[in-house]
Amino acid sequence: MTLKILGISGSLREKSVNTRALRAAGAVMPAGMQLEIADYGDVPLYNQDLQDRGIPPAVERLRAAIESADGVLFASPEYNFSISGVLKNAIDWVSRTSPQPFKGKPVAIMSATSGLWGGARHQYELRKILGSMDALALVKPEVLINLALTKFDADGQLTDANTLKTITDQMAAFRDWIVRLQPRD
Amino acid sequence: MTLKILGISGSLREKSVNTRALRAAGAVMPAGMQLEIADYGDVPLYNQDLQDRGIPPAVERLRAAIESADGVLFASPEYNFSISGVLKNAIDWVSRTSPQPFKGKPVAIMSATSGLWGGARHQYELRKILGSMDALALVKPEVLINLALTKFDADGQLTDANTLKTITDQMAAFRDWIVRLQPRD
Amino acid sequence: MTLKILGISGSLREKSVNTRALRAAGAVMPAGMQLEIADYGDVPLYNQDLQDRGIPPAVERLRAAIESADGVLFASPEYNFSISGVLKNAIDWVSRTSPQPFKGKPVAIMSATSGLWGGARHQYELRKILGSMDALALVKPEVLINLALTKFDADGQLTDANTLKTITDQMAAFRDWIVRLQPRD
Amino acid sequence: MTLKILGISGSLREKSVNTRALRAAGAVMPAGMQLEIADYGDVPLYNQDLQDRGIPPAVERLRAAIESADGVLFASPEYNFSISGVLKNAIDWVSRTSPQPFKGKPVAIMSATSGLWGGARHQYELRKILGSMDALALVKPEVLINLALTKFDADGQLTDANTLKTITDQMAAFRDWIVRLQPRD
Repeated sequence: MTLKILGISGSLREKSVNTRALRAAGAVMPAGMQLEIADYGDVPLYNQDLQDRGIPPAVERLRAAIESADGVLFASPEYNFSISGVLKNAIDWVSRTSPQPFKGKPVAIMSATSGLWGGARHQYELRKILGSMDALALVKPEVLINLALTKFDADGQLTDANTLKTITDQMAAFRDWIVRLQPRD
Repeated sequence: MTLKILGISGSLREKSVNTRALRAAGAVMPAGMQLEIADYGDVPLYNQDLQDRGIPPAVERLRAAIESADGVLFASPEYNFSISGVLKNAIDWVSRTSPQPFKGKPVAIMSATSGLWGGARHQYELRKILGSMDALALVKPEVLINLALTKFDADGQLTDANTLKTITDQMAAFRDWIVRLQPRD
Repeated sequence: MTLKILGISGSLREKSVNTRALRAAGAVMPAGMQLEIADYGDVPLYNQDLQDRGIPPAVERLRAAIESADGVLFASPEYNFSISGVLKNAIDWVSRTSPQPFKGKPVAIMSATSGLWGGARHQYELRKILGSMDALALVKPEVLINLALTKFDADGQLTDANTLKTITDQMAAFRDWIVRLQPRD
Repeated sequence: MTLKILGISGSLREKSVNTRALRAAGAVMPAGMQLEIADYGDVPLYNQDLQDRGIPPAVERLRAAIESADGVLFASPEYNFSISGVLKNAIDWVSRTSPQPFKGKPVAIMSATSGLWGGARHQYELRKILGSMDALALVKPEVLINLALTKFDADGQLTDANTLKTITDQMAAFRDWIVRLQPRD
């Protein structure tokens, strides 16, 4: 049976290195895993007054995509030492939907930055946020991609061998994590 | 000379307890401080592709309001154990404007939540974020308002005496902090 | 088969509310779980020069106790907004032993404080630390015990019904978490 | 007038790269600043029962050294994604002394690690801890020294030009920060 993985990039930019890291992960996933990348750029800014008028269709689409996935893979840029507002806003919306789709969901985290620290300043904040929704985050191996602009070519392909290796290892561990958490007969 | 304080609420909801906490702070500020609350609900979701076409007018308005203030007072709700996406998104935009207006700016933080913990899980993440932009955050006293729905009346007035006292103390300390950081002759 | 749980209190004080919270957890554990509380007060301050002369016996004893447990339950005081130095020092030592016993170990966290916030400011830092050692932390339910001095009687018995209920729920979830992570036939 | 800076290394190891980073900072401080490095290896593990019998002499010595300094410079290793237990233990003790010497004290933070991330995972936790004691932490520039073993020579001298430059800049900013916070006539 194929494991469906939903990729969520914290950057809406077309040439985002984080979105590209998701694609790279999709290419090195073990057989039996398949990646689809979420498109949530039309999720509005969260406002409870808006929520009171109904969950917006873009939010419901994202909720359903998470629910139907066997695991969710985040690629998270770091803005101002923390998670991007865009990603947090989408999470804030989804956390208020029902059934809340992150509950019990296996998740994994990558982060890519153009700077030196690869997302080390915020990846644990995202982990904390996901825990608040009862998601089950893979612990190791971690993927922190620093100096990201030097590790992808002009076509957006990940060319750095070490990074590819780390992502490959994480995807294998993510598959094992998902399988390990599945209900037993 | 009057000290102009810009209040930024992390919630766009009309009846937000955080916005109401800002108003309460405005009412107990020492003489010579004056509060204006930022209206930034029309800031779009951050996207570098959008930024490349120019800073949106709503972002530039927020930037200018921060720049012209003597201090910025945040009232920050806690969503999923962290800063609201809405507030982080506004900060992400402003951090990319020029001149970046948080540089060297005195700031203070309040948080209000309906639950038990009053924002204790995320207030330090906001502090970290503000530090990334070289803002100068007041350390003490802290304002964490828990069980917030019990502390404001139906008209949105803060009625809890202890909370009012803490906010009053913070505003006095914030004034002293701003004055202390001013250039010397 | 009995699940052996090692309790680690972050406070060495005899009348520590965190140690008492461990005992309370031991009393409400589901049938088939059994608690032993670690005694590690003789672990020295970490110093690599000391480590180079051999792992101290007190550290090796703690390492072995963790290794032979089916799960580790922390009760963590909050000092200065973070984990106690005493607990962190013990973790720092254990993380350098071999085989590192936290790898793949199910863990759960409680925290108790005399103040209002019950450890909310640091529980996620402990979670981050445990993740660094590849421990598998239970996500929910959380146990944060605030105003702890009012919730235990003079004999150190936990008398607050809500807190007992939360701890009972966490222990049931911890058992399920341990079982869920066990190897399959 | 000379500004006295107390350096506190989070590692007790003799050849600690953090202690060496402190010495490097001492060598590039602006004229009028002078560094002394604290020796606190004999501070015992914190235990309130012990405190009830009196503040240990080693703790009182550290307290007095902090009090008489114009600023405190930390060099903080990262163990298991967080502050070292040894440093936190010393802080826990000092926070319980009277007068608590960090109150209003200008502080600055460096961190050095042998790994890739230079302390980025924990430097903000130390900042949070220092804020809990009302210390006034310099925000920028930050000093994160990664791959530290390649940046010091066999005699423990810092030889990496970029790192020296960053430390020099931080020391100049630290002096300005201390002066800026001094009482006005």
